Amino acid sequence: MTKPDTTYAPLTVESLPERLGGVAAIANRLGADTSGWGVKEVGDGNLNLVFIVQSGKGSVIVKQALPYVRLVGDSWPLPLKRAYYEYHALIRQAARDPGTVPEVYYFDEAQGLIVMEFFTPHIILRHSLMAGRKHDGMARVLGLYCARTLFRGSDLSMDTTERKNDVRLFAESVELADITETLVFSDPYFEAERNHHTPGLDGIVARLRADVDLKVEAHNMKAKFCNNAETMLHGDLHTGSVMVTDTETKVIDPEFALYGPMGFDIGMLLGNFWMAYFAQPGHAETPGARVEYQEWILGVVSKIWSTFTAEFSQLWRTERTGILYERTLYEDQGHDLASEQALAQRLQHIWQDCLGFAGVEMIRRTLSLAHIAENDTIEDENMRADCEARGLRLGRQLVVNRERLMDMAAVNDLARQIAGEARL
Amino acid sequence: MTKPDTTYAPLTVESLPERLGGVAAIANRLGADTSGWGVKEVGDGNLNLVFIVQSGKGSVIVKQALPYVRLVGDSWPLPLKRAYYEYHALIRQAARDPGTVPEVYYFDEAQGLIVMEFFTPHIILRHSLMAGRKHDGMARVLGLYCARTLFRGSDLSMDTTERKNDVRLFAESVELADITETLVFSDPYFEAERNHHTPGLDGIVARLRADVDLKVEAHNMKAKFCNNAETMLHGDLHTGSVMVTDTETKVIDPEFALYGPMGFDIGMLLGNFWMAYFAQPGHAETPGARVEYQEWILGVVSKIWSTFTAEFSQLWRTERTGILYERTLYEDQGHDLASEQALAQRLQHIWQDCLGFAGVEMIRRTLSLAHIAENDTIEDENMRADCEARGLRLGRQLVVNRERLMDMAAVNDLARQIAGEARL
Repeated sequence: MTKPDTTYAPLTVESLPERLGGVAAIANRLGADTSGWGVKEVGDGNLNLVFIVQSGKGSVIVKQALPYVRLVGDSWPLPLKRAYYEYHALIRQAARDPGTVPEVYYFDEAQGLIVMEFFTPHIILRHSLMAGRKHDGMARVLGLYCARTLFRGSDLSMDTTERKNDVRLFAESVELADITETLVFSDPYFEAERNHHTPGLDGIVARLRADVDLKVEAHNMKAKFCNNAETMLHGDLHTGSVMVTDTETKVIDPEFALYGPMGFDIGMLLGNFWMAYFAQPGHAETPGARVEYQEWILGVVSKIWSTFTAEFSQLWRTERTGILYERTLYEDQGHDLASEQALAQRLQHIWQDCLGFAGVEMIRRTLSLAHIAENDTIEDENMRADCEARGLRLGRQLVVNRERLMDMAAVNDLARQIAGEARL
Repeated sequence: MTKPDTTYAPLTVESLPERLGGVAAIANRLGADTSGWGVKEVGDGNLNLVFIVQSGKGSVIVKQALPYVRLVGDSWPLPLKRAYYEYHALIRQAARDPGTVPEVYYFDEAQGLIVMEFFTPHIILRHSLMAGRKHDGMARVLGLYCARTLFRGSDLSMDTTERKNDVRLFAESVELADITETLVFSDPYFEAERNHHTPGLDGIVARLRADVDLKVEAHNMKAKFCNNAETMLHGDLHTGSVMVTDTETKVIDPEFALYGPMGFDIGMLLGNFWMAYFAQPGHAETPGARVEYQEWILGVVSKIWSTFTAEFSQLWRTERTGILYERTLYEDQGHDLASEQALAQRLQHIWQDCLGFAGVEMIRRTLSLAHIAENDTIEDENMRADCEARGLRLGRQLVVNRERLMDMAAVNDLARQIAGEARL
């Protein structure tokens, strides 16, 4: 085995076999003869180098942090340590929801490098949503994933010393948190330098930026994100962080992991589904061809939420071993109803936060730096503006009225109503 | 200057001059000739050694952590590191509200030792409340202290990297947090081993422990305490942590400092005033002799809250330099009203939390391990039970109905009504 590198240097397709050939955890999977390794750089994300390395024997993903934001370039430095947070998030997620996140084979902190399981033939869910493909079982996996990771990373479940140590570990991830704090919660609401939007949206964008209720509520959500360390979040759980086949669903890329509010991950995820819903007319082969697929997306949203609440409730009843709502005070005193009452309140709290974060995500993905492929790939600019405007309308409703929306049926009906309005 | 001790050893009245005589920061105040130092041990708190050291030249307080809880003994170990958290809290509080907390002269981490300003002739406020003494200006100092420390320790004001570093620093204080989490929020609500209460309260205690709404809401407050890292708290701001003269008010003993919700410190403080209010009949020289003093206490409560909101609002308008509710999005866009709308919501949020924490404090100080001198010193057990029962009644109302109480006048009226009820 070669000595591990201690000076950071970005990998290349050419240097990778030599530099990683001596790592046993990799050689065990690909074979020690690196001449048989095929290396491809596939990083299409915003931040990192990503390589697929394959041999006749097996395959791995090699993900390496760059010292800057790839999407923007070296004018925006970003610490390599994000690989450290991703590594710590991945091993915790794997323990909390086995089988849904990539197995980690090797981690090199100095190189900002993680070698992990390659999911194949999985594709990024976002591409699938543009192609109009359905995935049985996907909603269930995502609902379970959210319930298990959110519940098991919290004071409802963990030993509190362990949780406080994790809060400390992830609270050091200042630069990654700053990206979310700024791009998601602040930039969309004024003319920030990095913003861009489809020209046809000028009117609605001006109205949103003058909407006092929206701006106050968006920052109420920001305050929750910054201060409410309820659980370890994925931190970037959009449909580009989900990989699918017809039968499997996986969750990747938790480098934005941090402690935050329960509703954040699931809210961001649902917001991305609602945006994909509104984007469908821009991808329809013929007008109206995606109407049934749109209903499938709304069904996915419903199913994620119902699976989430069912699993969260089950974990509440069977794994509530943390310092909050202790069984000692409830079930052990014959007050099972107190436990159910507290559960209902917690779910209500998560529901309202979830809607608020979903709305904030829908707005920032249209007005801030990072947009979504479902909209960006709509070539007809009027059509694109129309799809985006509908997303903004729902997003605004969710942020401002999150405490007045009863259940998922009501929200999906709102989405249908907005989708059915005449061209905006 | 002698070499600093590196092996921990508790100070004694006899060893103190020799061990601290070489510390310049102390010798500068007391003189280098330790034969002129008078040392008195005065620790009447629950946790630590406290010495007053005086000479013809000056005086200091020497506070040293013991490796266990003094109140309980060495069966309950507690890390010396609490002096480290107290030190870090004191220097931050001094910067945020100059003149209200003791100046630190010297800190020795290995000895768990802080040498600080001795406030004289100040007495502990709790004793003064039993004696029926009034203190002009006290409410104003306490309201300002809360507003300034809570605002300036939060993401409303601080550089967020600095705040996150402080969150990490204080999140390590696991054992001290555990004391609050357990004794304040859990023990009172079931028959925990360390609990004790006045026998005459058996009936009401049984009812409270069977009160499902109360138990759920108390744990909703615990969830906020554990998860909502809104600001650096004093963490133990009761009337035993306040020292007064006729003209001066000081705040001491922040060893329980940690990041938590804005409403915690001020809520705990007000809860202690309301308990002192209900305890007055137990200290009245003749029946009814304390009626006017009781009104003075309610006036103090009102004045603390009104000072707090006025100062918090002033800081909001002039020092909002953090990442939450940024001026960039509000005032700089001509939307001053958005800023005022957000302020009103934040104050409402703090108000409701404040009432909840006040109620929780009133309940735990009657049912859990640590009680208050105002009640403990009432020799007539029936009278004591009666005073305590009234506190429990108000406490329960505050915890369960904190979102339905409009303003301080309504809460003080509730206190008056409970005080006026026939013997309970």
